[in-house]
Amino acid sequence: MAKRKLPAGKTKKPAVAKKAASNKRAVDKASPDKPDLAEVRAQIDGLDRQIQQLIAERAQWAHQVGKAKGKLAAAVDYYRPEREAQVLRRVVDRNEGPLGDETLVRLFREIMSACLAQQEPLKIGYLGPEGTFSQQAVHKHFGHSAKGLPLASIEEVFQEVAAKHADFGVVPVENSGQGTIQSTLDMFLTSPLMICGEVELRVHQHLLSRTGRIEDIERVYSHPMSLAQCSGWLRQNLPRAEKIAVSSNAEAARRARNADDAAAIAGETAAHVYGLKTIAGPIEDRSDNTTRFLVLGRELFPPSGHDRTSLLVFIRDRPGALYGVLEPLARRGISMNRIESRPAHGGLWQYAFFIDVAGHVDESPLRDALAEVGENAGDVRVLGSYPVAVL
Amino acid sequence: MAKRKLPAGKTKKPAVAKKAASNKRAVDKASPDKPDLAEVRAQIDGLDRQIQQLIAERAQWAHQVGKAKGKLAAAVDYYRPEREAQVLRRVVDRNEGPLGDETLVRLFREIMSACLAQQEPLKIGYLGPEGTFSQQAVHKHFGHSAKGLPLASIEEVFQEVAAKHADFGVVPVENSGQGTIQSTLDMFLTSPLMICGEVELRVHQHLLSRTGRIEDIERVYSHPMSLAQCSGWLRQNLPRAEKIAVSSNAEAARRARNADDAAAIAGETAAHVYGLKTIAGPIEDRSDNTTRFLVLGRELFPPSGHDRTSLLVFIRDRPGALYGVLEPLARRGISMNRIESRPAHGGLWQYAFFIDVAGHVDESPLRDALAEVGENAGDVRVLGSYPVAVL
Repeated sequence: MAKRKLPAGKTKKPAVAKKAASNKRAVDKASPDKPDLAEVRAQIDGLDRQIQQLIAERAQWAHQVGKAKGKLAAAVDYYRPEREAQVLRRVVDRNEGPLGDETLVRLFREIMSACLAQQEPLKIGYLGPEGTFSQQAVHKHFGHSAKGLPLASIEEVFQEVAAKHADFGVVPVENSGQGTIQSTLDMFLTSPLMICGEVELRVHQHLLSRTGRIEDIERVYSHPMSLAQCSGWLRQNLPRAEKIAVSSNAEAARRARNADDAAAIAGETAAHVYGLKTIAGPIEDRSDNTTRFLVLGRELFPPSGHDRTSLLVFIRDRPGALYGVLEPLARRGISMNRIESRPAHGGLWQYAFFIDVAGHVDESPLRDALAEVGENAGDVRVLGSYPVAVL
Repeated sequence: MAKRKLPAGKTKKPAVAKKAASNKRAVDKASPDKPDLAEVRAQIDGLDRQIQQLIAERAQWAHQVGKAKGKLAAAVDYYRPEREAQVLRRVVDRNEGPLGDETLVRLFREIMSACLAQQEPLKIGYLGPEGTFSQQAVHKHFGHSAKGLPLASIEEVFQEVAAKHADFGVVPVENSGQGTIQSTLDMFLTSPLMICGEVELRVHQHLLSRTGRIEDIERVYSHPMSLAQCSGWLRQNLPRAEKIAVSSNAEAARRARNADDAAAIAGETAAHVYGLKTIAGPIEDRSDNTTRFLVLGRELFPPSGHDRTSLLVFIRDRPGALYGVLEPLARRGISMNRIESRPAHGGLWQYAFFIDVAGHVDESPLRDALAEVGENAGDVRVLGSYPVAVL
């Protein structure tokens, strides 16, 4: 478990040499600094042949899973998020480099995605148009063999999944800068859909300027949210620079282009769009600057071993009601990631709470805690128990 | 070579069973229709471990290629398009299913992309914003480990590659519906960049309507280009329907939403965005309805074995000049994919021709033909010799 926490993209100490005894000769034969190119390529060709053979076998076995589930079914009938999460965690646990965890997880997502799509690919509704972060989240979670359906609104994503026009949906729910997207959560007040996964996309900030020299900078432009996200870094590295809030990071980059003493905080791609140089980055104070998405489905899946549960609790407005919900969880040491209160649209003086807790509803201690909550407090609806995002 | 022409995404007859002798037991043990799920999953886990091991070894060897090329270099120093094309053609040639050629090529693109990005990823400039077909072309050609730089114009893509801010650029050059994008070709009149690859993206048309029943349809809306692309299908299947040209396929879908007797020709995703049902698709008359992109770089790469060469020929306006260019090519049986004349900006009465021919400038017969053309006609500039797109 601890191994999984290595910094993303960071390569670990290469430990492949000791495993790849059969390939050792070519390296020995050539000089260690200048191995023979033709020989190295021949080795790679041999490996590619083996990889291809194994991927074909894997696809064949995945086909068997479809059979094991009954008649030859569409991908949605044998897609199992808990199983995918387990496979990916194993990939991370046994990774000894040289490729980073994130890269390997992506490759295995794609391999699984391809194997699953043999009959008919999964159809995934998301908030379009194409090219949004939501589409990136779809690809990150389901791989490129799944078929993304760009939809016009978050409401439509819920509708299309409920109507079975899409197998799953992906909707943004939380931005670590801007907080919860209330309209997404509110959909659950009336929708019967379940949450069956989460996806996290990292967002990085960079300091960009025309000259690329930090000593030139007297003003820093950015969106207020981005300035806030980088305030620690700015205090430490540019204590005397003026911070100027503008409407967007793109606008900040545009302004930084017009003066040598101005810098912008923006995504790295803005540097290239606006012809700026990167002074430093990532510079956000919290490295977990992410947007979180929920995967919507129509059913509850079994535990993956490292799960999270989202609850919707309706509470009558009487003293102690919230305590009656939280106490059984706290007493069992169940950690809570989030609690948000929303006015319920149902009745007078009722409140709804969205609560995220660790664990799966089919496993203790959460199962016991929820039974107890159900007796004492109002309605508890399980919105979903799903694997914690793997990278 | 012939094998490579199998329909994309079509699975061939599974031939894995005979190869995977070691895995035969599990299938035999369980009933052929209902194999044991746990056992199948154990097999897949074993395969995943091997695949991961081999990918790690491959990454280690790719690292050696970097060394073989001299000091430990950035990806751009040892990225070889001709080698990548060869690897992918081999993948297609030995593919016996069950996964389709296109899927396997994508997986191997990603594996190569990840191996190449170990030091520093390739930086690829393209016509932004994110989410365009150009970005899809970047990912299709360079994989997701390359870093895409969205730029504001095709001119900027050329500039950024020339200034070495980007390692390569990807620009659209031809749409099988709309023809050549002249402004892209014209950039070569003044730019020193070389073409070092091509990417093709397929585009499909579908007939969409509110009811999903073809017998209801009396009017078909679409962009004139799309109507033209599907005219054969329409003549055969909807001979009496009125064809109405509108400004875009999205507008067509919007109109089709308002009446039961109207249909739109549009991309499949429009069905979901506008809540329409698919009557039929793909319905374009030519199945090779594609957009073609060029990969821009700063150097000429060696032959891959199946290459194309783009030439820019300046001709003085005298009788027989064009013949003097084409005859040496024709006499040697060199096939020509395209010829486009453009007014050259240089001198009075001069014309420039963009000509695409089969072969590589470093190999006969093209090498000899070009030597002869250079003697008889005007200037011949080689814009690039590059691998023909692999799927």
